[in-house]
Amino acid sequence: MSRSPGRKQENHKISRELFVLTYGALVAQLCKDYEKDEDVNACLDRMGYSIGIRLIDDFLARSAVKRCRSYSETADMIAQVAFKMYLGVTPSVNCSSATGNEFSLILDKNPLVDFVEELPAERASLCYCNLLCGVIRGALEMVHLAAEVTFLQDRLKGDAVTEIGITFLRKPEDRKHRRN
Amino acid sequence: MSRSPGRKQENHKISRELFVLTYGALVAQLCKDYEKDEDVNACLDRMGYSIGIRLIDDFLARSAVKRCRSYSETADMIAQVAFKMYLGVTPSVNCSSATGNEFSLILDKNPLVDFVEELPAERASLCYCNLLCGVIRGALEMVHLAAEVTFLQDRLKGDAVTEIGITFLRKPEDRKHRRN
Repeated sequence: MSRSPGRKQENHKISRELFVLTYGALVAQLCKDYEKDEDVNACLDRMGYSIGIRLIDDFLARSAVKRCRSYSETADMIAQVAFKMYLGVTPSVNCSSATGNEFSLILDKNPLVDFVEELPAERASLCYCNLLCGVIRGALEMVHLAAEVTFLQDRLKGDAVTEIGITFLRKPEDRKHRRN
Repeated sequence: MSRSPGRKQENHKISRELFVLTYGALVAQLCKDYEKDEDVNACLDRMGYSIGIRLIDDFLARSAVKRCRSYSETADMIAQVAFKMYLGVTPSVNCSSATGNEFSLILDKNPLVDFVEELPAERASLCYCNLLCGVIRGALEMVHLAAEVTFLQDRLKGDAVTEIGITFLRKPEDRKHRRN
């Protein structure tokens, strides 16, 4: 007896809850593996970086976005297209420097912590979502943009919002010779 | 300077690629942590179980499905609603026993291995997707259905399809007294 449903075209869209819980299992495992929060954070960042350098191809193919002409456009693209696509939320974007190379993504709601009540007291320095920083850094590097990406605020640590800072490391005048 | 996009209702649907790559990072980490494939498999199953017992509430709320009246309906529900919802694919369902309590879910394509070329030679016994078995087992337990869930075939190991076997452990005549 076999019941095969009508074969529809494959759907890449999924509900994110299994992902969010699986991410929690990953962080919990790393907390077992490493005593220091800094080591967990660094590991999440490294893992994210490896993911970002692979995810960028999927992102470019699926989003069909045009090349960004400025850091500002790039930051908007990350917030409005990439976050929407892979996390289902759209952070707002802040430009936080006069030189125009520092931005922050502000998340009123962070779906990755949907199932997390609070950080345990002994894990006060954990950047629970640090994988995201690595993903952004890795993906940017693949389009020839070096950046530092870190959490500036985190609701899990009692801040009012969750804020990811992105500092592009090349100066604007260098960029006309580079692909973005 | 702040650019906030129009706030649309939150969207739980996401592209699955970040999830798939994050899952890969989890499996890779466990392969670092445990020398034996059997230990990695057992850990993935345990993690999945913990996820399943939490995911079931989300599933019931989001799917608004009715109570299943038979093992067969339950197997169909897992394949056609749950897999579709959380992995974006719909396995076909096979009933593989005369007693009507053994089913298998057959995946022509398994999105969780999208970025996996092959298992390393030294990891030949790894059940890469074993988390899924634990998730199904945990979720079923929360609706009072005990089951054994294991991979019967795996394309990563050279099989023609990927097949997950589900054996319900209670006899049908017990079930009229139980919630499903």
